[in-house]
Formats: sequence, structure tokens, C-alpha cells
Amino acid sequence: MERIDDLQLKGLRIIQNSELFCFGTDAVLLADFASPKKGARIADLGTGTGILPLLLYGRQRDITVDAIEIQEKLAVNAQRSVELNGLCEYIRIVQGDIRDAYRLLGSEYDMVVVNPPYDKATAAIPSMDESHQTARFETKITWEEICKAAQKLLRSGGKFCMIHRVSRLVELFETLRSCRLEPKEMRLIHSSLKSEPACVLISATKDGRPALKVLPPLIVHEADGSETVEVKKIYHRNGEE
Amino acid sequence: MERIDDLQLKGLRIIQNSELFCFGTDAVLLADFASPKKGARIADLGTGTGILPLLLYGRQRDITVDAIEIQEKLAVNAQRSVELNGLCEYIRIVQGDIRDAYRLLGSEYDMVVVNPPYDKATAAIPSMDESHQTARFETKITWEEICKAAQKLLRSGGKFCMIHRVSRLVELFETLRSCRLEPKEMRLIHSSLKSEPACVLISATKDGRPALKVLPPLIVHEADGSETVEVKKIYHRNGEE
Repeated sequence: MERIDDLQLKGLRIIQNSELFCFGTDAVLLADFASPKKGARIADLGTGTGILPLLLYGRQRDITVDAIEIQEKLAVNAQRSVELNGLCEYIRIVQGDIRDAYRLLGSEYDMVVVNPPYDKATAAIPSMDESHQTARFETKITWEEICKAAQKLLRSGGKFCMIHRVSRLVELFETLRSCRLEPKEMRLIHSSLKSEPACVLISATKDGRPALKVLPPLIVHEADGSETVEVKKIYHRNGEE
Repeated sequence: MERIDDLQLKGLRIIQNSELFCFGTDAVLLADFASPKKGARIADLGTGTGILPLLLYGRQRDITVDAIEIQEKLAVNAQRSVELNGLCEYIRIVQGDIRDAYRLLGSEYDMVVVNPPYDKATAAIPSMDESHQTARFETKITWEEICKAAQKLLRSGGKFCMIHRVSRLVELFETLRSCRLEPKEMRLIHSSLKSEPACVLISATKDGRPALKVLPPLIVHEADGSETVEVKKIYHRNGEE
């Protein structure tokens, strides 16, 4: 079932299909964490519905985003969302494999963003349809392949921003560093102050000097279950400007 | 100037000399995080004043701790503290180099603990006296050498518990894993909820399966500067039993 959702952000809208993968909170938190500078050239690896380019543009209008998506139906819908918002000048959707990103998109990007599949292919659920499977499990691409693609796309000193599973943190760091992507900032996302974080935001700098900064925890819910002031701000940051 | 401090913990006391390195909050938080099981055989690498063995014994009396310290004066005082508390049966102080720990102490330990020098030798402050220099900077030993020592001391499945600087997290993980010490649990220590953590508690398991669990943040101070309930409990946990 296709629908058009209002992003509550500078009038931007997105086309989503409930039979395909739909975007979640992760994308909103990642776009806020990445906060690109004016004039940045950005690549988005596995854009899905095209949500990240739209949210990044919502925060900072002086950017361009080239987004790649392997699933044809999602790529077509992402392109339609870009057209619906009249943003063809700023956002380009390319259907293709992340492993070919360098050939398809080029290099010298200031920033690469990714909201990758969180779990290994071995954990994949056979009964799940292919669209969700591809988005959630590393059936089509591994973390190492994503890092290698980001390394080729970025200029030296460029930033690679991601959200991922905390349980894989040791591996994430190891693979990033092996691809000359030095983790520089990290923020853990806790559902509540007393809970263990499931997800982590990381930014790594190509050829960066080793020294990690950990930001204060990002707490999503208050003890009473309501959203924290910070998360409310993140959701409405650009809409209010 | 020598003094005897009451640890406020089951009547335990410690001999400290203000001209040598004295223990800090770090040791208290690490002892609480490590929380060894009954009957555990533990090694402490670079025990300084002998604080960690005393605090571990304060939490769990059914353990033995073999502690190594390279600085002769500190090792002598640590031994005197053990005697003062009548704990020669449970705690053994050995003067020596951590690099020789396997030869001096043996192997098949259930747990190794370390409160290591936090900073690289290159950051050392020349005007600082040698005792503080050795405790704070890697002038006498590197992180990699400490991990190699821990690997040899531990049995397969044994735990290596440490406190260290957050800024070195990527390197800590990388070196641990290269020594077959898989990081399994991590807890960040924040001075306050809104501050960036400077230190991190980590436990790694020798030959463990990769999967990191991050615990809720450990917040030391309330917004008004007072200690949090959790930190107060850590300080007095054993005294209250």
C-alpha cells in the first residue's frame, strides 16, 4: 500500500510503501548526528525510501546528496519523492550496488552516511520478504564492503557517519580503522537512562588522528515513557526554524 | 608523609605515602565493576598501594589475589598494608615487572584486573616524580604489553577487567582482541549526565565469543554536584553488609 507521509519538516514529504522497507527513528537520529556543513557533497549508501537525503536537506539546504539504492522499487519511489519535493537539483538517486559506488558516484565526497543492515546474514529470517531482509541483514553486503566503499568515496579528512548495533562495536571500530576511517565521535542511544543502549551513532574521519570522543548519552524516553526534550527537539528541529 | 587510611570497608586500612602515588576513585569503581565470584583466583597488574586487592577482598572474602608492582617502595608499603589487615593468607604482593608476570605468578587465573597508566609515554611530564610518572604514563609498560601479560595469566574463559581512558577506546578494543581477549561488557563513567565520559570500565573474556554489551551509564554526580545514589552505594556497599 503506497502512501505519502508528511515529514513535519519544512513541508517535505516522502512516498512509502508498506510492502517495502519503511524508515524509522534511526534515520532521524542519524541525520541529526551527521549535521553536515554548508556546501557539503554527501553520499548516502543504501538510501531505501530516500529518507536520509530529505532529512539532511531539511537541516541544511546548502548541500547535495548522491544516494545509492540496490532495490529497484525503493530506488524508483525515492526518486519520485525527490521529484515530489522539487529537489532534483540537490538530491540524486542512483539505482545500484554499494560495492560499485565509486564507479557510479565518483570520489572526493565530504561526507558519507549509512544506515546499514544491523545483523549478519547468518541471522536472517527466511520467511521475511526480500525488501526487509536486505535492509535488516547483511545478505547483499557486509560491513567491511560498506566501509571499503565509504573509504573510496571520501576525500581525506571527510566524515563517515553511521548508526549501528552496539553489540558489534568492537568489529565496527576494527573494520573502520582497517579502512583508514578513524572513529572520532560516538554517541550511545539509550531507550531510557537505566537501560542498556542497543544502537550507537559513530562518526569516523578518513585518515584522522586516533582519539575518540564519546558524547553524553542520547536518552529517548523519560522514566514515564514520554519522549525526552532532546528527542522532541531532534524531531522538530528544522520544522521550527 | 606516610599515613594510614581507613577504607570504610569492613575495618580495612591502607598505608599511603603522599610522596608516592595514592589511589583514587578509579580503583573503587573498578573493584565494584569486577565483582569476582566466590573462590576466584585473581591477579592485579601494577597494584600500587595494594588498593585493588583490599577492595576486592572487601566485596568477596572467598578469593585470593596475587598482585604485582614494579616500584619497590610501593610494593613494600602494599605488603605492610596486607600484614596490617592480617590478610597474608588471601593477598600476595610480588615486586616485579608486569612483563614477567607469567614467570612470577603462574597461569590459569580466573580474573586479571588492571588500573593501568592512562596516557602514552610521549605525553609524560618531565618535571613529575618517577612514582607518579610510572602510574600515569606508559613509561615503563605499554597497553599491548599489559594485554599480553593478562592473556598468559588467564585461563580460557577467564575475565580481564580494566578502567581506562575513553579517548583510547578504539586502540583498547583492537589490542584486546589481538590478544584473544574479547571485550564483552563496557560501562562509561560520566562525571554528570550531561558531560562526556573520560573513563570507561571494560571486561574482556579470554577466547570469548564476539558480542559487546554496553551497560547503562555510570553517573558520578547529580546536577547539584552531590554524589549520585549509585556512587554512594558503591563506596559503602561492603561496609553495609
